Amino acid sequence: MGVDERLKELGITLPEPATPIATYVRYYQTGNLLFISGTAPGDRAKPGKLGRDLTVEEGYEVAREVGLSIIATAQDALGDLDRVKRVVKLLGMVNSMPDFIDQPKVINGCSDLMVEVFGEAGRHTRSAVGFAALPGNIAVEIECMMEVG
Amino acid sequence: MGVDERLKELGITLPEPATPIATYVRYYQTGNLLFISGTAPGDRAKPGKLGRDLTVEEGYEVAREVGLSIIATAQDALGDLDRVKRVVKLLGMVNSMPDFIDQPKVINGCSDLMVEVFGEAGRHTRSAVGFAALPGNIAVEIECMMEVG
Amino acid sequence: MGVDERLKELGITLPEPATPIATYVRYYQTGNLLFISGTAPGDRAKPGKLGRDLTVEEGYEVAREVGLSIIATAQDALGDLDRVKRVVKLLGMVNSMPDFIDQPKVINGCSDLMVEVFGEAGRHTRSAVGFAALPGNIAVEIECMMEVG
Repeated sequence: MGVDERLKELGITLPEPATPIATYVRYYQTGNLLFISGTAPGDRAKPGKLGRDLTVEEGYEVAREVGLSIIATAQDALGDLDRVKRVVKLLGMVNSMPDFIDQPKVINGCSDLMVEVFGEAGRHTRSAVGFAALPGNIAVEIECMMEVG
Repeated sequence: MGVDERLKELGITLPEPATPIATYVRYYQTGNLLFISGTAPGDRAKPGKLGRDLTVEEGYEVAREVGLSIIATAQDALGDLDRVKRVVKLLGMVNSMPDFIDQPKVINGCSDLMVEVFGEAGRHTRSAVGFAALPGNIAVEIECMMEVG
Repeated sequence: MGVDERLKELGITLPEPATPIATYVRYYQTGNLLFISGTAPGDRAKPGKLGRDLTVEEGYEVAREVGLSIIATAQDALGDLDRVKRVVKLLGMVNSMPDFIDQPKVINGCSDLMVEVFGEAGRHTRSAVGFAALPGNIAVEIECMMEVG
């Protein structure tokens, strides 16, 4: 089953890919590596810091939304999501109060999505860690590297 | 026009490349990828945290200075800046108070410089995010990956 | 002298490699690059924030422990540590109070270990920076990329 079929089966509609508003780009491929810029959730995602403004469950949902936006960017970059051979690496950035220590449970929202959508090819290396502040007070930002064919 | 000419036209003189004071190195090339260590601004750059000690405009200038130091390191690594095929990725680390949310506007100081100096080859993927603290209380540190020929 | 002999000479016994408890993996190799997930120290390492709960010296020891766990993961991934051609990059993440500015001295615990164990091949690029919070309140987490043969 191709990735597009799996998305349909999961009832997932990808969001419009985000447009960067600066001198950077959303993605760049060199060799068989696709680099995707740090990606925010959509505008309606709950903002704020984990440990004060969002529960772990709310953070998980935001991370899942970020994952959908990453997949939308990959679709835009590659034309065909079946060209994703492997999600290599995620850097999971969680807007955190100093005493919040469950960053992995939050970033699982993106990690689980990658495995749902890409199967074994979605299993990746990652770091899931706490940042003092994120742009526009978003709760989660995630950077991604993929191996593509 | 080569990069050296463009630097002259822009009136830019590169700083001396920084010397690491530990068991790490400033750069390493594997295949056609050049990795540049997290880079600080020069000693005279304003230190401190965005959201308390520096304005966004001051942060932008510090990020630009960091960019100059990154280009100086690339010059040192490659001998010839025309070998830079693409700036692939920046990790823009901003020393941030918990309520500072304009990290992208700060890191634009480096992003804009890359496009001024390298043209289309300077357009990169990036993350621009807020850190609790940076070495020596510098305001901005940036890590860089380039594709080289 | 091979890496295994050097480990013996240094009196180092590698810990058991860590097992991730989520949908991510500890390592993935694409081409000649080995990516290792953000790695924690063992359970007995002192937790907490630098600048409040640990001295720089204690942080250095924790970073060294993280390094041992990274090497254990590389051993597991490669079967033979002599296949490590170069430690390319470390992202050294230090759990930091806002006024702690000695992240490099902490991460040196891992950087020095890499050079002790791998010699010249252990010299790497890196960033050593301060995070608001880390999973489970560990003091240090480190992500690693290696060039392998």
